[in-house]
Amino acid sequence: MKMKKGLTAKGRATRQRIVVAAALLIREKGIAGTSLDDVRVATATSKSQLFHYFPEGRSDILAAVTEYEACQVLEAQQPFLGDLSTWESWQDWQHAVVTHYTELGQRCPLGSLTAELGKSSPQTRAVVSSLYDKWEAALVRGVETVTSAGRDAALGRARSILTAVQGGVVMLQTTGRTDYLEAALTEAISPLRPVGTQVGSV
Amino acid sequence: MKMKKGLTAKGRATRQRIVVAAALLIREKGIAGTSLDDVRVATATSKSQLFHYFPEGRSDILAAVTEYEACQVLEAQQPFLGDLSTWESWQDWQHAVVTHYTELGQRCPLGSLTAELGKSSPQTRAVVSSLYDKWEAALVRGVETVTSAGRDAALGRARSILTAVQGGVVMLQTTGRTDYLEAALTEAISPLRPVGTQVGSV
Repeated sequence: MKMKKGLTAKGRATRQRIVVAAALLIREKGIAGTSLDDVRVATATSKSQLFHYFPEGRSDILAAVTEYEACQVLEAQQPFLGDLSTWESWQDWQHAVVTHYTELGQRCPLGSLTAELGKSSPQTRAVVSSLYDKWEAALVRGVETVTSAGRDAALGRARSILTAVQGGVVMLQTTGRTDYLEAALTEAISPLRPVGTQVGSV
Repeated sequence: MKMKKGLTAKGRATRQRIVVAAALLIREKGIAGTSLDDVRVATATSKSQLFHYFPEGRSDILAAVTEYEACQVLEAQQPFLGDLSTWESWQDWQHAVVTHYTELGQRCPLGSLTAELGKSSPQTRAVVSSLYDKWEAALVRGVETVTSAGRDAALGRARSILTAVQGGVVMLQTTGRTDYLEAALTEAISPLRPVGTQVGSV
């Protein structure tokens, strides 16, 4: 879905307010349990206003909420993800990630939305690929800051850290156990530990 | 679901034949597209025979097929997973895993079945936890064989390898890209490479 062109700053703010409200409703009541009328009531907007911002109605709102929830995945890791410049900040980030997904438990707002849009639909693929790209870029910047790794090695390390998060979260959601996520992240970031503070590991 | 008690060897074989046929039908036509009648026709069994082996009918068959598909996840990694006793066998296993999931692409027989049973239902949790436990045990045995790691370090390494597979496969299924799986597995098994053949990595 493209942002409707020619929105004023006020228009963009209103649109964003609707997206955030719809996202909260969906988190609370599920996709099936959230109607256009619910969104309209929660945001005190008229039907014609809604269709002004989301010409295709429900499908446009769902697409916008999916993009919003993809951003929230990164937001939940801030401020740590944006400043992975020390070993301590990597540890803080790891802690934030484990805490966040432990709190979410089996809920996965983005996962429910992409399931609704079709797990392998072009729309889902675009949102998720863009999320992974931004996430990977932030991790690469962090790896490059704390190591002298070349670009390829930093990319490999970043992908391996990102994959550890994805795998750990999937395993947390199916088993209720956090230790896979913890163990995988600990191993994945351990090469970033400053020399001289290495602990024994395989 | 418990295996019906008191089945003869012949009975067990018939039951297994029905499960395998149902699994193939479901792989081909999807869960919604596979009826009890389809299973009956494909296996040349009568209705009363089917209910003899699967007293609750469809739900019993789905549960049995889910357990079967969980076993197939490990089968697809054999003979490599059962003998990770050299660095070469770890590399062969990595290659087999990447090839297998690349071929599957967006299909995930076990994932579709657990989605049908409820992603966080007790039934799904039992099957998936048991799968992870067996998988982890095989990886731990391999790590212990090729390193001098203690039990804890071997467990951490095994979990991190298993998580790399889960994460890489999820990312492959949503993006169509295999490089996350490849990069994460390469990093996760690299500490198992014999000393003296280490390549530079972060």
